[in-house]
Amino acid sequence: MIKLRFSLFLCLLVSHGAVAEYRATGDLGIVIERAKGSALIINTSQRSILAKIESLGDLSHASVVFSRDERYAFIFGRDGGLTKIDLLQDKVAKRIIQAGNSIGGAISQDGHFIAVSNYTPGGIKIFLTETLELVAEIPAEYGENKLSKVVGLVDAPNQQFVFSLFDAGEIWLVDINNPKKPEIKKFKAIGKQPYDALLSPDGRYYIAGLFGEQGLAVLDLWNPETGVKRILPDYGKEDEKLPVYKMPHLEGWAVAGDYMLIPAVGQHEVLVIDKRSWTLVKRIPVAGQPVFVMARPDGRHIWVNFAFPDNQKLQIIDAKDLTIIKSLAPGKAVLHMEFTPRGEEVWVSVRDDNQLVVYDTESFKEIIRLPAENPSGIFFSSRAHKMGL
Amino acid sequence: MIKLRFSLFLCLLVSHGAVAEYRATGDLGIVIERAKGSALIINTSQRSILAKIESLGDLSHASVVFSRDERYAFIFGRDGGLTKIDLLQDKVAKRIIQAGNSIGGAISQDGHFIAVSNYTPGGIKIFLTETLELVAEIPAEYGENKLSKVVGLVDAPNQQFVFSLFDAGEIWLVDINNPKKPEIKKFKAIGKQPYDALLSPDGRYYIAGLFGEQGLAVLDLWNPETGVKRILPDYGKEDEKLPVYKMPHLEGWAVAGDYMLIPAVGQHEVLVIDKRSWTLVKRIPVAGQPVFVMARPDGRHIWVNFAFPDNQKLQIIDAKDLTIIKSLAPGKAVLHMEFTPRGEEVWVSVRDDNQLVVYDTESFKEIIRLPAENPSGIFFSSRAHKMGL
Repeated sequence: MIKLRFSLFLCLLVSHGAVAEYRATGDLGIVIERAKGSALIINTSQRSILAKIESLGDLSHASVVFSRDERYAFIFGRDGGLTKIDLLQDKVAKRIIQAGNSIGGAISQDGHFIAVSNYTPGGIKIFLTETLELVAEIPAEYGENKLSKVVGLVDAPNQQFVFSLFDAGEIWLVDINNPKKPEIKKFKAIGKQPYDALLSPDGRYYIAGLFGEQGLAVLDLWNPETGVKRILPDYGKEDEKLPVYKMPHLEGWAVAGDYMLIPAVGQHEVLVIDKRSWTLVKRIPVAGQPVFVMARPDGRHIWVNFAFPDNQKLQIIDAKDLTIIKSLAPGKAVLHMEFTPRGEEVWVSVRDDNQLVVYDTESFKEIIRLPAENPSGIFFSSRAHKMGL
Repeated sequence: MIKLRFSLFLCLLVSHGAVAEYRATGDLGIVIERAKGSALIINTSQRSILAKIESLGDLSHASVVFSRDERYAFIFGRDGGLTKIDLLQDKVAKRIIQAGNSIGGAISQDGHFIAVSNYTPGGIKIFLTETLELVAEIPAEYGENKLSKVVGLVDAPNQQFVFSLFDAGEIWLVDINNPKKPEIKKFKAIGKQPYDALLSPDGRYYIAGLFGEQGLAVLDLWNPETGVKRILPDYGKEDEKLPVYKMPHLEGWAVAGDYMLIPAVGQHEVLVIDKRSWTLVKRIPVAGQPVFVMARPDGRHIWVNFAFPDNQKLQIIDAKDLTIIKSLAPGKAVLHMEFTPRGEEVWVSVRDDNQLVVYDTESFKEIIRLPAENPSGIFFSSRAHKMGL
């Protein structure tokens, strides 16, 4: 009878653990706890923290992509760590160290392949999503066996990856329809020191920022044969004497209606660009050097955070008349924002206050604060369904 | 000992049933089997049918929305049935008959409310997503206690629903921030017999087609105070003598770059409209009267299906030069298409061949055919993250 009771007890434990796993995955997310090397699994419907996953290595500049079923999160660590997190079982499914120094990654359109961009050794590696088994390696060779740091890696339609070679000043377009033998198109002399890049939300334009000179390099993926073009010749560090506290992230560029809003480099300004002509329409003065300039999913509002010493602030621009309609002060060191998929709320990481703040994006009211240890990047599982992230 | 074994056996059964439910929900979908009143739960990663749910009533003209966690599908039946399907447990979670004749529905931005548009009695009803409990009822009254049929119901940003009154020629904008007391703005005399409507993907423009006259009615939700405007004055039934086999669905309008592609009414043409000026740019001759004109998620290709007697065909338009680049013949009575979230594949329902056909959208190769009984609408769970569907 004791044995029976014990077995029933075990049974309940097992069943309970399992029943708790009727968990859907459309409203989940990952928050990077940079200093601790850990990550939180969160739920945006309940606005709650479901689990903490530890021992993920160096997560400075970490980024995350999701499997197409939204079950797995893949975390790219600075130390070359690639970790596959199971969002249904709150645990690490697989973890490898794939390089010495890594800067980000992407997942292929069909969800079968993960690409990681590396500084050391310079190049990209492609892994099977399922097992993290290495499928292909593409060293970023230029000149005499020199390897370039790779930045701005994104996925693009038709099973392609695109990335930039910082040291070489090149953009490479990789077709992995035959994953064992990737086809590479190289675009050379695209500009000095591309430092980051973005793909337009429709997957058509790959745009790289240049650290070494003014302007931006644009590759039209509908017409790759026309080569890389230079746009916005005045864009970049406008004054060598002005300190640039942090190069803005390009991923955050906002598309709102006919306009793109982009962070000026080193200036207290957000620039408004006409998408058709790539010309400057307006400069909007803001509270500091912008880092992320992100459109609410409906494009009506654009949220902006700032580099030190203005990184306690957030400002919101109304796309209707391109003016600032709200300023917020979430706390010390506002690092990142992520909108819920249909944009009704936004999660904000406030690193030095050890908090996540959730705002209602229409009333700008604070809904809840949740504890997190030095949170940085926030990534929701709905990214699984988007291109170029 | 027998008891112990029995309990262990039970325990295994319970655990096994539960363990099988480590199912993520980002790659699921619903296929309507119209004639049978049943629905299939499908998986787009495995390209498989997971379950069949029966006894769902009259599913002619049925449509589906998804909860924000992508766990539940809500099916709107023609007979006023509203069924909540649990995609994790392959079963009906709740089913009500909420009206006598229904035409579609929507889910609020925050995911808490389901709205259903009814012909009989004319109006909309709003339910709690969680329990399907009635929260508010908005009769579509006009004139002396007359109730209008309601069509073109969509969700819009800031917890709004928008719909059209077919008999009254009105558009109503409903704010449910206080769900017990919805605020209603009525736009009158917008045109004769609005028969369907769409919301632009950014949630800004609500566009209703008019059955009773030429042109389209547009409400700019960024500037509702400016009222409803008429665009494309020549759009509609161009020749009264030409038979219109099926009014095109407006939901399928494609936005590709700067253009919108829309089905001409009664003509063998797809019309290309400039989004900025709402003017006609081009007429593309196609193989029949277009029904759905749908852009691949990257906007590069536009897929078109047709009304009887050309409903065995599909044509694909390249957005780059607005020409037809491919014609396919999937089978008898091609009713609907749904792209996978990042657009690498498309599922097509072929009603009279009792098949679903999955195509690679780049090579146009057929990947697989799956059996389904007279399939009509196909709806993937990624719709949970989109506005206006």
